[in-house]
Amino acid sequence: MADPLLRTLRCRNDHRPGVLGRLATALGAVGANIGDIRTIRVGRDHIVRDLDILVDDEAGLLRTLEVVNQLDGVDLLEVIDEVHELHIDGKLEVRATHPVRTLHDLRRVYTPGVAEVVETIRRNPEEAYTYTIRGKTVAIITNGTRVLGLGNVGPIAALPVMEGKAALLHQFVGLSAFPLVIAARDADTIVNTVCQLAQGFGAIQLEDIESPVCFEVEKRLVEGLEMPVLHDDQHGTAVAVLAAALNATTRAGLDLARSQVGVIGLGAAGTAIARILGEVSLRPLLGFDPNPQAQARLRSVGGEPVGEMAELMARSDLGAAASGRAHLIAPGMIRRGQGVFALTNPQPEITVEDALAAGAAFAGDGRSVNNLLGFPGILRAAVDCRARRIAPSMYVAAARAIASFAREDELVPSPLRPEVHRGVARAVAEAAEKAGVARVQLPTDYQLDAPFEALRGS
Amino acid sequence: MADPLLRTLRCRNDHRPGVLGRLATALGAVGANIGDIRTIRVGRDHIVRDLDILVDDEAGLLRTLEVVNQLDGVDLLEVIDEVHELHIDGKLEVRATHPVRTLHDLRRVYTPGVAEVVETIRRNPEEAYTYTIRGKTVAIITNGTRVLGLGNVGPIAALPVMEGKAALLHQFVGLSAFPLVIAARDADTIVNTVCQLAQGFGAIQLEDIESPVCFEVEKRLVEGLEMPVLHDDQHGTAVAVLAAALNATTRAGLDLARSQVGVIGLGAAGTAIARILGEVSLRPLLGFDPNPQAQARLRSVGGEPVGEMAELMARSDLGAAASGRAHLIAPGMIRRGQGVFALTNPQPEITVEDALAAGAAFAGDGRSVNNLLGFPGILRAAVDCRARRIAPSMYVAAARAIASFAREDELVPSPLRPEVHRGVARAVAEAAEKAGVARVQLPTDYQLDAPFEALRGS
Repeated sequence: MADPLLRTLRCRNDHRPGVLGRLATALGAVGANIGDIRTIRVGRDHIVRDLDILVDDEAGLLRTLEVVNQLDGVDLLEVIDEVHELHIDGKLEVRATHPVRTLHDLRRVYTPGVAEVVETIRRNPEEAYTYTIRGKTVAIITNGTRVLGLGNVGPIAALPVMEGKAALLHQFVGLSAFPLVIAARDADTIVNTVCQLAQGFGAIQLEDIESPVCFEVEKRLVEGLEMPVLHDDQHGTAVAVLAAALNATTRAGLDLARSQVGVIGLGAAGTAIARILGEVSLRPLLGFDPNPQAQARLRSVGGEPVGEMAELMARSDLGAAASGRAHLIAPGMIRRGQGVFALTNPQPEITVEDALAAGAAFAGDGRSVNNLLGFPGILRAAVDCRARRIAPSMYVAAARAIASFAREDELVPSPLRPEVHRGVARAVAEAAEKAGVARVQLPTDYQLDAPFEALRGS
Repeated sequence: MADPLLRTLRCRNDHRPGVLGRLATALGAVGANIGDIRTIRVGRDHIVRDLDILVDDEAGLLRTLEVVNQLDGVDLLEVIDEVHELHIDGKLEVRATHPVRTLHDLRRVYTPGVAEVVETIRRNPEEAYTYTIRGKTVAIITNGTRVLGLGNVGPIAALPVMEGKAALLHQFVGLSAFPLVIAARDADTIVNTVCQLAQGFGAIQLEDIESPVCFEVEKRLVEGLEMPVLHDDQHGTAVAVLAAALNATTRAGLDLARSQVGVIGLGAAGTAIARILGEVSLRPLLGFDPNPQAQARLRSVGGEPVGEMAELMARSDLGAAASGRAHLIAPGMIRRGQGVFALTNPQPEITVEDALAAGAAFAGDGRSVNNLLGFPGILRAAVDCRARRIAPSMYVAAARAIASFAREDELVPSPLRPEVHRGVARAVAEAAEKAGVARVQLPTDYQLDAPFEALRGS
């Protein structure tokens, strides 16, 4: 499948009523999704606007341009590729927090002053959390074997995605995250490489590593490192799904704890969804996946593999699919009053519209149920309290916090709302303390807006 | 040996002539070095000043405080540990270069927009230099086995030093450098770890790894990776020494090319000094080191091991020592008219004053001959032209550029002068092109102040 393209059309329209309407209609007719529209210049006779569009592929872009070029009163000035432009030089910068302009600066940041700090940490390595970047940094680890909907693109092509995650971690919760792309595909080499470097970081975030390697890597790192290790594709996604499920069931008058949950596709995300829903549900989970390894994983977390997808849907009050297969769920499988999350991106197993039309009480897809909601706040809290590991109750706490911020008309809140991440961090920090995995006690008025040093009570 | 301490004394002095003079005299008398003095508040009767001091150790600090407390007209208000304060939360920050505030931002930085960039790089991995941080990043690698004058402090205690290097790389030449501290001491594991991660970076900087492991690590990385690999302790130091030697010999009326050069201590720095001086000298180099491995290394680069240090000094027009041993060179070994560089920090093999008093024509130590002069510009140029490796001629070009910026009264310029790093980068880029190791041709008006993208002619 080709990848969607994001472009900006700069159009000079005749300045009279109806022109923008005809343009938007024409774009819609050829299947171009319209995003933001920005006014660039207003003249007496003309008005210049930038229209962001999303098209399915190169052919779709060509069709779109052809249609726009034929429109009366619309002059296509430029097709801007903002995405590539924005990516020039990457999306991150490693900056010095203290400028070095004088010899005085140099002597404190570098030699001879730095020797004192080296000695402080040599005597007590725990001080590295205070006097180095360790207390605020996350290593984002991938080998690029399972990126978004793109599959195995390899380590270096995965770097822009990891930079994006790092950018969001800085923006949302103030962490300094750095992407490390690893060449190897085998668990041994990945684990050894991460273990060699881990002590320089406050937490490890695993991203976009293929299944089942990702399970072994996560398990061995969690066992081997006394620090937070988060496999985002599993737990980030699962947290967002649980948040949505909590809101959806409540509103549909159901009790999630007493509902029958079924999961279709037991890869990284599916298994984690099964696991987190298992934390809150009182009934054994159903799961469908033709892969015997996946079935064994489900059994190991107390779930029951089901032989047919139709059977799973028929028996479930809430069905969640993370299969990687577009259009996998036929509308006929939907049971009236059932809840459906079809999470595969960019094309879900069944669209929200089709699921609702088929009688679902509620439905969500991978765009709305976004793992961006979870990982920033979880990691920030885990780093702040120097958690030995991330306990399952911390993921559940994150999900409940996310759910609490949703407005009436949404299953989960927008990840662009800063208070969501603050709320997640606070809930996760509390849960870490309760679970006994926090190595330092955070202040009772813990707020992630506070500078890192304040959290340490120093 | 204890480490020197940098402190700031906040003193309220009586506002009358002579008080500051007595304070400074008293500090000098107990061996406290005075740095900057800043006026904080001026009142009618009193004046509050911050005095930066450097003392040898904790005992020296106590003696200093005692003396200050006894001074008439001086009230010691506070002893400030600016170094530790400044190091809180570390000295680096990984920031997003494009803020993510709206859905429009999110769609370009993250999904779905990023997929296009992933595809661009998957089709042609070289594009990663343009569309990711690879084109401006350096991995700073250490295991902390040989830090400054501190020895084997281990990986995590070495982190503040590496952060300092990264801060300087950003400040001086705009590179985004990230420190990675490696747990292992053996060359195999270090090399394997770096090779797993290298493709995410534009260059590899090796720092503070013990000898002889550092030699094997550097050799294998240079052979295995088609990208710049710089062992700063070797080549950064050697470049600064060559720069100083060029200026010193010229001013003493000597021709470095025809001078006899001798090197004492053939560890990492000494071997590299022997190597770079071998590049410009026509006479085979002399070297002294009791270690047979070190002697073999010298022979392999065309030098001649000498059995006695006194013999080496007697035969050399220019003697450079990087032995790690304070006071190793007795004044009696100095030959009239000879040049001496005693590079061990913080206490040199012979002080500049003693060397000059013993008849040396010129002398330098490790504080003035600083590797900060070389590595930033070398790395920036090597990253910009995507050098396959750093050729010896690039190091020589860096040294000549550094030398050209020194004023009449100094052997090398201050590393705080931005034009020095610009000059180094320009010279190194030219040398890379001539040596045939540059993978992309830089513009003829190459300036490192230009944004990275401009350098690519895009």
